Amino acid sequence: MSNLEAALTYAHDHKKDFLNDLLSILRIPSISTLPEHNADIVASAQWIASQLEELSFDEVEIMPTSRHPVVYGSWTKAGTQAPTILVYGHYDVQPVDPLDQWGTDPFDPRIREDNVFARGASDMKGQVVAHLKAMEAILKSGNLPVNIKYMIEGEEEIGSPSLEAFLKNHGDLFECDFCLNADSGILGAEIPSMSYALRGLAYFEIRLQGPSTDMHSGIFGGAVVNPGNILCSLIAGMKDQDYKVTLPGFYDHVRPLTQDEHKELAQLPQPEDWWLKQSGANALDGEKGFTSTERATARPTLDVNGLYCGFIGEGSKTVLPAKAMAKISMRLVPDQTPGMVKQSLETYLAENVPPGISWEIKGLSSCMPGFIDRDSDAVKAASRALESVWGKSPLFKREGGSVPVVGLIRELLGVNSLLLGFGLPDDNLHAPNEKMYLPNFYRGIETYIRFMYEIAG
Amino acid sequence: MSNLEAALTYAHDHKKDFLNDLLSILRIPSISTLPEHNADIVASAQWIASQLEELSFDEVEIMPTSRHPVVYGSWTKAGTQAPTILVYGHYDVQPVDPLDQWGTDPFDPRIREDNVFARGASDMKGQVVAHLKAMEAILKSGNLPVNIKYMIEGEEEIGSPSLEAFLKNHGDLFECDFCLNADSGILGAEIPSMSYALRGLAYFEIRLQGPSTDMHSGIFGGAVVNPGNILCSLIAGMKDQDYKVTLPGFYDHVRPLTQDEHKELAQLPQPEDWWLKQSGANALDGEKGFTSTERATARPTLDVNGLYCGFIGEGSKTVLPAKAMAKISMRLVPDQTPGMVKQSLETYLAENVPPGISWEIKGLSSCMPGFIDRDSDAVKAASRALESVWGKSPLFKREGGSVPVVGLIRELLGVNSLLLGFGLPDDNLHAPNEKMYLPNFYRGIETYIRFMYEIAG
Repeated sequence: MSNLEAALTYAHDHKKDFLNDLLSILRIPSISTLPEHNADIVASAQWIASQLEELSFDEVEIMPTSRHPVVYGSWTKAGTQAPTILVYGHYDVQPVDPLDQWGTDPFDPRIREDNVFARGASDMKGQVVAHLKAMEAILKSGNLPVNIKYMIEGEEEIGSPSLEAFLKNHGDLFECDFCLNADSGILGAEIPSMSYALRGLAYFEIRLQGPSTDMHSGIFGGAVVNPGNILCSLIAGMKDQDYKVTLPGFYDHVRPLTQDEHKELAQLPQPEDWWLKQSGANALDGEKGFTSTERATARPTLDVNGLYCGFIGEGSKTVLPAKAMAKISMRLVPDQTPGMVKQSLETYLAENVPPGISWEIKGLSSCMPGFIDRDSDAVKAASRALESVWGKSPLFKREGGSVPVVGLIRELLGVNSLLLGFGLPDDNLHAPNEKMYLPNFYRGIETYIRFMYEIAG
Repeated sequence: MSNLEAALTYAHDHKKDFLNDLLSILRIPSISTLPEHNADIVASAQWIASQLEELSFDEVEIMPTSRHPVVYGSWTKAGTQAPTILVYGHYDVQPVDPLDQWGTDPFDPRIREDNVFARGASDMKGQVVAHLKAMEAILKSGNLPVNIKYMIEGEEEIGSPSLEAFLKNHGDLFECDFCLNADSGILGAEIPSMSYALRGLAYFEIRLQGPSTDMHSGIFGGAVVNPGNILCSLIAGMKDQDYKVTLPGFYDHVRPLTQDEHKELAQLPQPEDWWLKQSGANALDGEKGFTSTERATARPTLDVNGLYCGFIGEGSKTVLPAKAMAKISMRLVPDQTPGMVKQSLETYLAENVPPGISWEIKGLSSCMPGFIDRDSDAVKAASRALESVWGKSPLFKREGGSVPVVGLIRELLGVNSLLLGFGLPDDNLHAPNEKMYLPNFYRGIETYIRFMYEIAG
């Protein structure tokens, strides 16, 4: 029996134990945003650390941060020639409100029709336990062909505020060839899929000032440049009629979609009808020459997130406002960076703000886009593993949103992230009645097992 | 001695009595917005009615409205061949807060250095009494060559809410050839001037809707048309780079400035420096081809008064907003009407709102522009009267703001208004230490006397 076969057999024989372990950690209410659950946060971290110790990891440590600890684990017996994979996950969960909409207690996990219902089942204790159990199956039955490190944090649901400082202090511990980010999902229970790209973010506040104070629009209107009108002109000028962004150099570093990517994205179960229905708008439109799926995942954007100027109460006030403010954000794609588009925006404003108006911009948040090459060993290995388990090739998709930790790991550890997890679109993440579909919990374990052998070659 | 000379002599001989009568009405705290002053409102109306009765007016009546009464008076012994002038004024005053910033009690009028300090001294009991005393001087000394009607209301400082219904019910009582609106002023104590035009107003709220609810700008950004961006594009498209309004037909009914008007407006004591200093902006700009004074008084505008969309709190929220709202208003000049520009706006929106966005507009307030021909008998008569009293020709100016009662009288009585009053820019209207400059109270009386004989020809 090969190592792989031995591990799969072990996993098959221990399904019940694996499930019991999953239920065990799901009972810990590790809500990161509520201080009264700090002991549960620690208990959850300890639960994971004890699993790693049980697997005879070389190093296991619950490492403090300024708030909730990170569980670190390292198993490097595969040697320096073998690849080293960093597994990223989080053990904290969202709050449970509104509690009265839950069918059962969110921290008393119950199984109904192949699903286990509990807060954190899919996001993401289910994924973390699936990976731990894959490790157990391999290490208890034979030999692990790669080096593994774990970084399981406790602050993801509150925006990972401590992670950047933590990685700056301890980056050397997490040296690796790539990151396997298990905080992910597939398109449907029977639709294996993988995300190979995430959009980044650059979010700005623009403030304009015209007259020194609000003025009477009758007495001064016409003679004084109105910052509200100018704000509109500036934002309007940021896109052309084809919904292309006009900021200088904005597209210079955008990696174009290949013909293969166009074809693959067209195969995703998200036709134009799907987007139209999701939005509830009377029609769709966007950057000319691209489908809605491409516009929302593979192309950069420039969206108004907020506008404020003058009088916005009921009725009328004839004010010529002194100030106007906009929040605008851009979703970025490889190889754009927040710094590049900030430069584009500043150049545009410097060239286009007219006399009579002064301006300033403030960066409010930013995140690098994420990308892992479709032809990389990691993607190919994951693809083969998914195909073996589901019996069909996975679909390749891109995420329109941003996952800050992927950008952070790229920036501070210098490696790309493979997004490989098994949540489903209807898992009720961050909502009442969160669940994990158990057949995919087991298929996830098998996929992770196969992936380790596929990546080792 | 001519009738004019007799009236001027009477006025000269009764200066002390006239002043005492002014002080008498200034002691009545007729604050229209405060219900506890309702008895003072009535006392103030009675004071004016008794003056008219004393002058043997044909009809004098304190006419109720849904809130504060209108004092009506009519003297028509000049006969049907003589012109009939409607004198508009108001006897109500603004509140006095902040009281601690007054040098003396606002309702205990005190004279210091040629000024009488009291709430309502300039706005506008001083002007009303000046006109009443001109009538007294004429009627007590000889013959009034014109017919006179009075409409002195008690709600001007709260926006004249009852006046429209009142005029619709009683319009026939106020039939006249033109209105003399005494609620006005001159540019400086030694700078006689007259306003012959007022801008109108058309104020709208524009509401756009894109997706049916707020969406995640990462997941949907690019695929869904953003109503915030579109609102900016629509407003930007309402003006060109020369700050000309582009709404279809917007300028069709704008009466162009004559060469004489350009010259006259250039002589006003409002050079570019004055506008720059008033605004506090770093530069001025506006409709190409016009001075700031022309832009602010003689040309129509389109100003953003308010903008609201999405998230406007501290920090960032990656929302793709469902809705966006703007309040915009246009100042109108003769012969534009609110209805015309509403049509222009609707046509523009119907042609330019793109697929994916639905829209609606709501008219929030409107007012007709006011204009009285510079070559009309009334303007010429007033001009000669001012020149006789001050010894120099008056300057002709236009008002950038709107005076709703002028539009209302134009609409419901079908006549234009001559703005002829004697307030000064530093009279502290609506502020602590309101005052009237007494030399101009007397010059105002003389001007009104001369005007009656000038207009009679």
